[in-house]
Amino acid sequence: MSQQLAVGIDIGGTNTKFGIVDRRGNILCDGRMLTNKHEDVNCFLDELHQHMSVLIEQVGGSENIKGIGVGAPNGNFYNGNIEYAPNLRWKGVVPLASLLEKKFSLPTVLTNDANAAALGELIYGAARGMKDFIVITLGTGVGSGIVANGQLIYGHDGFAGELGHIIVIPGGRLHPGTGAHGSLEAYASATGVTNTAIEFLSTRPEVPSLMREHSKEEINSKLIYEAAMKGDPLAMEVYEYTGQILGAALANFVMFSSPEAIVLFGGLTQAGDVIMKPVREHMEKNLLPIFRNKVKLLFSELKESDAAILGASALAWEMKD
Amino acid sequence: MSQQLAVGIDIGGTNTKFGIVDRRGNILCDGRMLTNKHEDVNCFLDELHQHMSVLIEQVGGSENIKGIGVGAPNGNFYNGNIEYAPNLRWKGVVPLASLLEKKFSLPTVLTNDANAAALGELIYGAARGMKDFIVITLGTGVGSGIVANGQLIYGHDGFAGELGHIIVIPGGRLHPGTGAHGSLEAYASATGVTNTAIEFLSTRPEVPSLMREHSKEEINSKLIYEAAMKGDPLAMEVYEYTGQILGAALANFVMFSSPEAIVLFGGLTQAGDVIMKPVREHMEKNLLPIFRNKVKLLFSELKESDAAILGASALAWEMKD
Repeated sequence: MSQQLAVGIDIGGTNTKFGIVDRRGNILCDGRMLTNKHEDVNCFLDELHQHMSVLIEQVGGSENIKGIGVGAPNGNFYNGNIEYAPNLRWKGVVPLASLLEKKFSLPTVLTNDANAAALGELIYGAARGMKDFIVITLGTGVGSGIVANGQLIYGHDGFAGELGHIIVIPGGRLHPGTGAHGSLEAYASATGVTNTAIEFLSTRPEVPSLMREHSKEEINSKLIYEAAMKGDPLAMEVYEYTGQILGAALANFVMFSSPEAIVLFGGLTQAGDVIMKPVREHMEKNLLPIFRNKVKLLFSELKESDAAILGASALAWEMKD
Repeated sequence: MSQQLAVGIDIGGTNTKFGIVDRRGNILCDGRMLTNKHEDVNCFLDELHQHMSVLIEQVGGSENIKGIGVGAPNGNFYNGNIEYAPNLRWKGVVPLASLLEKKFSLPTVLTNDANAAALGELIYGAARGMKDFIVITLGTGVGSGIVANGQLIYGHDGFAGELGHIIVIPGGRLHPGTGAHGSLEAYASATGVTNTAIEFLSTRPEVPSLMREHSKEEINSKLIYEAAMKGDPLAMEVYEYTGQILGAALANFVMFSSPEAIVLFGGLTQAGDVIMKPVREHMEKNLLPIFRNKVKLLFSELKESDAAILGASALAWEMKD
């Protein structure tokens, strides 16, 4: 009767989304705020508390809530800290779970945002019933949640599944947040795709493009997507190139954990076949024969905003009473 | 009382090693034969049966033996097949476990040779008590066994852990066995190291080397090792280069499953610090800060011949009665 609700909070590089979820996975109410508005995490928590208090009142008060689950970049399941997240303004180690526990007087569990998304896919989404799969989140950053033998892989320190930071092109494009050269995130994130478009606009002057009507500062992933949907040749080349790099990276991941499926999630997947086709082609091309034509390449079945909140809330259901 | 013994068989790209092991991990008797002498797997099994029969007699007959565990390249735990192993002469799908069962009238379980090595490290070796680690086998080929949450990762089809075939340098050196360009195995296997030496001997004529007294055909990993132990500058550069590529690859693996340790095993590890130093340096350099100075980089504590047999035999102990 009581405690039939859980709070799910998803902290992204751009937005923080939060909602209150029932045991069936219905999101009763939700909201969002900008993550990087506040340099001080306490100011962020104050604003989050303001928003959440309204929602908690709506559902009858915090006595109905079992706990808070949080998905956050570089979130550590074991200690509840966000540690050295390259896409957040809060530097170093931020003990977010314990700060939230104090602020809300509710038990709080935290994990990697992509691990939370993987839990969402496992319980409500495209990976229902699977024991081995990988979720790749393609947003401001590139994250991953890896399930093997039916369990999330956290690793010995809670940080497993940082596939966005693996090096796919040694000596390649600089990732300003990490200083690494050639990491997957430098190509397959929203920023990465934007940088590819800016690069192609200058290095491929012979390819016509609607994007040439815009200044360099105006180019972003939304504009590239809209251009590609109109058949823009340069935007199509941007997706082809992104798909080539992502597909080759997925092949490497398959040879690691041999998943039944890879679930792609986030902004880039809006392009549908335009991104899926090159990803699939280059994944298959880079696989050993034993792995070919076996791995299901799927788009998430969950609404983007819902999946992260549902996944985060699933952490709260898994808490011991 | 009865069935206190298990057979462990390790099928490598060059040698097949076999032994009879007691429950404490003592190898009571063992032997070896060439793997690729016979193009027909049945002739291989005939010869193996001849050798093994002598050993089985020595320990009092097959009624004392619980079963056979086999480690083999591309060995599939779920169905007992060797499937499309690039380093073996038997092509396609070879139902090795069922063939062995018929030949020896003993229950047989088979897995990837590197997974067997990982079981050996887990039960008897450097990874005792660890829940998250990776074993990398550096021999004729490069294999891997991945343990996460205390369990071997087999993947949905039994083929997880083919880290030797992940692409570390896109468009890099051709692997003649797989047709892939730039896979880890093309650089860090015995053949890979040999090819690097042959390449360096021709492209770096200014670097002095004892190896210049030998013809190209005489260069092999043993010769390179012996030269490096004498401080040979070119041989040292070969190890430095190999360590750079292997270290960068290990960094990617760490960002996948965040293991407590990586255990290196096989021929290349004989070089000790000469290989470990560059591996460690380039692994750390390529890691996100959150992963740095955390991962134990270890050499296997088991004798090379023992580890594979022990690991394979451990599969037999895990069989249901």
